[in-house]
Amino acid sequence: MPNELIQEEINQSKIIDQIRCLAIDMISEAKSGHPGIALGAAPIVYALYANHLRIDPKNPNYFNRDRFILSAGHASALLYATLYMAGYDLTLDDLKAFRQIDSKTPGHPEYGITPGVDCSSGPLGQGLATAIGVAMAEANLRAKYNKGKNPLIDFNTYVLCGDGDLMEGISYEAASLAGTLKLNKLIVLYDSNNICLDGPTSLTFNENIAMRFISQGWNVISVEDGNSFELISKAIEEAKTSTEKPTLIEIKTTIGKYSENAGTNKVHGAPLSKEDISNIKETLGIRDIPFAISQNTCEEFRQIINDRCQNLSAEFDRKILSLDDKTLNELRYFMEPDKKLQMNSFTYDPPEDNLEATRDTSQKILNYMSKLYPFIIGGSADLFASNKTYIKDGCNFQADNYLGKNIYFGVREHAMGAILNGLSLCGFRPYGSTFLVFSDYLKPAIRMAALMNLQNIYVFSHDSISVGEDGPTHQPVEQLLALRSLPNLEVFRPADANETIGAYKAIFAKSNGPSVISLARNKTKILEVTKANEVEKGGYILIDPIKKADAILISSGEELHLAIEVANRLKPKGIDLRVVSMPNLERFLKQTPEYIEDVLPVEIRKIVIEASSSYSWNKLIYNSKYLITLDKFGASGKYQDVYKKYGFDVDSLEEKVEELLK
Amino acid sequence: MPNELIQEEINQSKIIDQIRCLAIDMISEAKSGHPGIALGAAPIVYALYANHLRIDPKNPNYFNRDRFILSAGHASALLYATLYMAGYDLTLDDLKAFRQIDSKTPGHPEYGITPGVDCSSGPLGQGLATAIGVAMAEANLRAKYNKGKNPLIDFNTYVLCGDGDLMEGISYEAASLAGTLKLNKLIVLYDSNNICLDGPTSLTFNENIAMRFISQGWNVISVEDGNSFELISKAIEEAKTSTEKPTLIEIKTTIGKYSENAGTNKVHGAPLSKEDISNIKETLGIRDIPFAISQNTCEEFRQIINDRCQNLSAEFDRKILSLDDKTLNELRYFMEPDKKLQMNSFTYDPPEDNLEATRDTSQKILNYMSKLYPFIIGGSADLFASNKTYIKDGCNFQADNYLGKNIYFGVREHAMGAILNGLSLCGFRPYGSTFLVFSDYLKPAIRMAALMNLQNIYVFSHDSISVGEDGPTHQPVEQLLALRSLPNLEVFRPADANETIGAYKAIFAKSNGPSVISLARNKTKILEVTKANEVEKGGYILIDPIKKADAILISSGEELHLAIEVANRLKPKGIDLRVVSMPNLERFLKQTPEYIEDVLPVEIRKIVIEASSSYSWNKLIYNSKYLITLDKFGASGKYQDVYKKYGFDVDSLEEKVEELLK
Repeated sequence: MPNELIQEEINQSKIIDQIRCLAIDMISEAKSGHPGIALGAAPIVYALYANHLRIDPKNPNYFNRDRFILSAGHASALLYATLYMAGYDLTLDDLKAFRQIDSKTPGHPEYGITPGVDCSSGPLGQGLATAIGVAMAEANLRAKYNKGKNPLIDFNTYVLCGDGDLMEGISYEAASLAGTLKLNKLIVLYDSNNICLDGPTSLTFNENIAMRFISQGWNVISVEDGNSFELISKAIEEAKTSTEKPTLIEIKTTIGKYSENAGTNKVHGAPLSKEDISNIKETLGIRDIPFAISQNTCEEFRQIINDRCQNLSAEFDRKILSLDDKTLNELRYFMEPDKKLQMNSFTYDPPEDNLEATRDTSQKILNYMSKLYPFIIGGSADLFASNKTYIKDGCNFQADNYLGKNIYFGVREHAMGAILNGLSLCGFRPYGSTFLVFSDYLKPAIRMAALMNLQNIYVFSHDSISVGEDGPTHQPVEQLLALRSLPNLEVFRPADANETIGAYKAIFAKSNGPSVISLARNKTKILEVTKANEVEKGGYILIDPIKKADAILISSGEELHLAIEVANRLKPKGIDLRVVSMPNLERFLKQTPEYIEDVLPVEIRKIVIEASSSYSWNKLIYNSKYLITLDKFGASGKYQDVYKKYGFDVDSLEEKVEELLK
Repeated sequence: MPNELIQEEINQSKIIDQIRCLAIDMISEAKSGHPGIALGAAPIVYALYANHLRIDPKNPNYFNRDRFILSAGHASALLYATLYMAGYDLTLDDLKAFRQIDSKTPGHPEYGITPGVDCSSGPLGQGLATAIGVAMAEANLRAKYNKGKNPLIDFNTYVLCGDGDLMEGISYEAASLAGTLKLNKLIVLYDSNNICLDGPTSLTFNENIAMRFISQGWNVISVEDGNSFELISKAIEEAKTSTEKPTLIEIKTTIGKYSENAGTNKVHGAPLSKEDISNIKETLGIRDIPFAISQNTCEEFRQIINDRCQNLSAEFDRKILSLDDKTLNELRYFMEPDKKLQMNSFTYDPPEDNLEATRDTSQKILNYMSKLYPFIIGGSADLFASNKTYIKDGCNFQADNYLGKNIYFGVREHAMGAILNGLSLCGFRPYGSTFLVFSDYLKPAIRMAALMNLQNIYVFSHDSISVGEDGPTHQPVEQLLALRSLPNLEVFRPADANETIGAYKAIFAKSNGPSVISLARNKTKILEVTKANEVEKGGYILIDPIKKADAILISSGEELHLAIEVANRLKPKGIDLRVVSMPNLERFLKQTPEYIEDVLPVEIRKIVIEASSSYSWNKLIYNSKYLITLDKFGASGKYQDVYKKYGFDVDSLEEKVEELLK
């Protein structure tokens, strides 16, 4: 080996060790964090940043950068130390503020907080599954915008994951889809150290991981010595040549390498002792002073990256300038934070019989908007025919056609949720669909979307006990509340075609946070009194008697039709009711006090009719006696019979309301 | 082949075809259901009931029966038709009432409704994962109670699943643990028909399933012709000889066999046309009259089962009578519905400094109760050290020791939830643990427990933003509400050791429905004013001024300590506050109006302090201004700093309360 190469090798090891020591110092300073993976996986992260990631630390968000998602989010100290060393906009003081309130270096990576962090992570499995969405986004953009030999979009998606990620079902689901879709530009670096939080993985996790991923259509590469960044780098090089399959690189590492507790779970999640840190630094030849940095290693690391990446971001900027206006405008949407879309040009053509399930109206709108805007893409968790989210002539997103608009997520709601996050992170406005009751399956991924302020749209159909025959396992009760109460997520529950249009208008007009549209299975009348443009206020007066109302019925979705009928029936009995439609309770609560008082005057009695959890509605009505809601599980039967069993048929409702107003 | 055998074969095919036709008639009568799997998988279910399942249709719940879980719950018509034919307590009228309100034959199998149904199912993946819990229960009971050659407990657990089940992450998680634990008495019959709801599985699901299960430590057997009950039966016979591994039998079938739409997704989820049914019946030689039954086939099926099973249940009864009293009593608990346990003998030994995190108190109680009662078993989703749910000297539940009390669920919260359901279905009182924020991951399984009225205990620690450094991905906000609003689930959130004892007393005293115990990460004072015995009322007066209170502070968990401090600080300022502890809001709301008025008199102002979603508390207080709660995501930082950021430090709270009471 020529002397020069040896020299380089030594220096690079030094950089890795510097990163290790910075990370354990951060954890020590914070008195909190995860030194095990920082010490064990530093060569992996180094190999990636030094030799492979196409990035620009000075322009961290340039669009065609390679993405890196730290699925093992507890390795945040390792990531931040690496980003600092690589020249991202982080100072030593930022590293010293690791895990402190309002710092740029929070406990787990947070999107939008730290330059160079492409995705929030922490809940295990989410990052890996999100990466599949990122790789799908890349595949779609690549198919869409690359002409000729000089590709505009061609980024790789890298993930660092650990055993914990691979134990979570979501990672299995997502990997299965990635294999089916042949996402060859996805490369997962698996930090395989045989240790989980509770002890050796053998206690609970005895899989042949290579075989598992091969069974799912992946390319698998093994690196026996995870302390060798050269071997890791070589493996990544090989992975990049995969043409038909995503790649898993299983890298055998030692958790807490160089610590006295190396190779055990003791080193996983608590700061190291002072002595341990001193000994590690002595072994590695790093000065035993907290946050001591050798300026040389720092500069060398930055130089290595610069040599490889210096032109990438500028080159991309040049390329997009040569695009035609239409393409450039389109691409800009993906690149810019403003996600507002308008659907004013949508014209609705009601069916002759004036009956339509909101899920059917939804399909018309999605078809229209999807054809209008290339950023809208989505699919269903194996319920296209029920959710009505299929885009006709939109083709299917498949391994042989990444231009397809219809994603077959399979019966994988949780992965669907994370994949939507990945698509959003690349600028799409994606939607995913399933039955409302199964929103539970993807809730953790919805939470990540809300945390990252992404604009996903969740199309949840079959949104009450009126699901009917399928029974209580398929009938939502508490789900609307669970979604309404999720911070930064909005729930729209339109009652008919008009309100469905209004809900989508409001959703597409948003530039922050995800939205749920909750849709009915059954056909209902398209009402004359509903107004699309009122939906954005959350709630509005639908029907009002000429004289002052005796009481107000508040309702949403399918049940609004029952409320109207109750009002109609009680009128001849001398009871004059106002009917208020409340497609979005949270929005309504944010209106001015004057508007709220106007719609729901304090002195008039109010009754809510909604076949879902009462908790939502105590926000409007204190006395639960006036809530005609549902706090128990549904039942199997014809939907009319199910409604009746729980008092949501018009006869029962009429009687109940009359009694309440006596 | 001798004539006799041919004869038998023909007759058995006739029984299968009879079952098929009954099932499609049921679906046709209901105008709702899933004929595809009924036609395709009938030979599988037949082979199982005729030749393998050790059951007693007249005594369907006898304890050592083989369990059968229909994970593909949409095959309910097939199951009910088979149960009827097999002689369970179902009439033709019951079959005709398929999917009708209040029938014994609901849309998806419901535990406790239909004799012979061992588990509710429908949400895909849940059944398979629950079966892993059933097999674990059997392994534990077998290890515990079998002496000598003549085993008392030795039942097999069978599952029928489809592609949809295997796409769900939960099934992967559970299968991974089953392989690790070498649950050889678990046999999964995989109805492999290459069709999912949206079309051919190739659209989204291209796994080598055999390889996948082998990678997880399973034995895999293939049956190429799924229309041959003999081949299926032979495969099951072979599976029963597996000594070290659970078995997956992949059975290639044709969805909707004999229908005009056989082999396509069209036949999955809607009734067949009249013509289609007529043609199928003609092909099969069944009279074309709805619900026509050949009495011969019915009797023959019952005879086949009877010949094999007639003595099983009586034999088991005999065996248990020969047990010693202690063992018999113990075993009876597993077999009987009354699940109440008392913990009166528990004596609490407070630490010297009088400081303890409720998770630590919880560990003491679980250790005590677990040693006292063999029915209590549980574990953690890779967070033993944090959740504090490890039973010291309880040994680990492992492949070489099924007597172990500590289950290492791995980072598999969802499978953990379903496994608890399986354990409960076999009479255990199991617990599972993770961080409260990750309750989202197992919510669908908790819902199944609530639906089945099982007595699972969920130990959720780290129950607020006071998690601190780990940041918003690890800090629950909306989770307490989500759990409180889940029908038939109770949430206890004790404030200190005394209330933790009270909460467990109340939980163990329950004989219906699952419970959550929500525990704090941080140490808090053991209060003099808290009372274990008051917890069962849900809420009670903790501190009361001598004169009439100016206002009432209501709080729970860790925040109760802040509320008390606020009250103490405001007293010298002339503001006399009552403090009410509310460890279980739902229970409190069910108390008598008198008790509620006594604790929270209408005319006194009330303020809630809880660092979680406001929706919970509008049930007590209409005006949200008096709710010091949290409707946004947390942040990473020292827990005191996080509290402060959101106004939950004592200074901020004091100021806020004072202002509110001005």
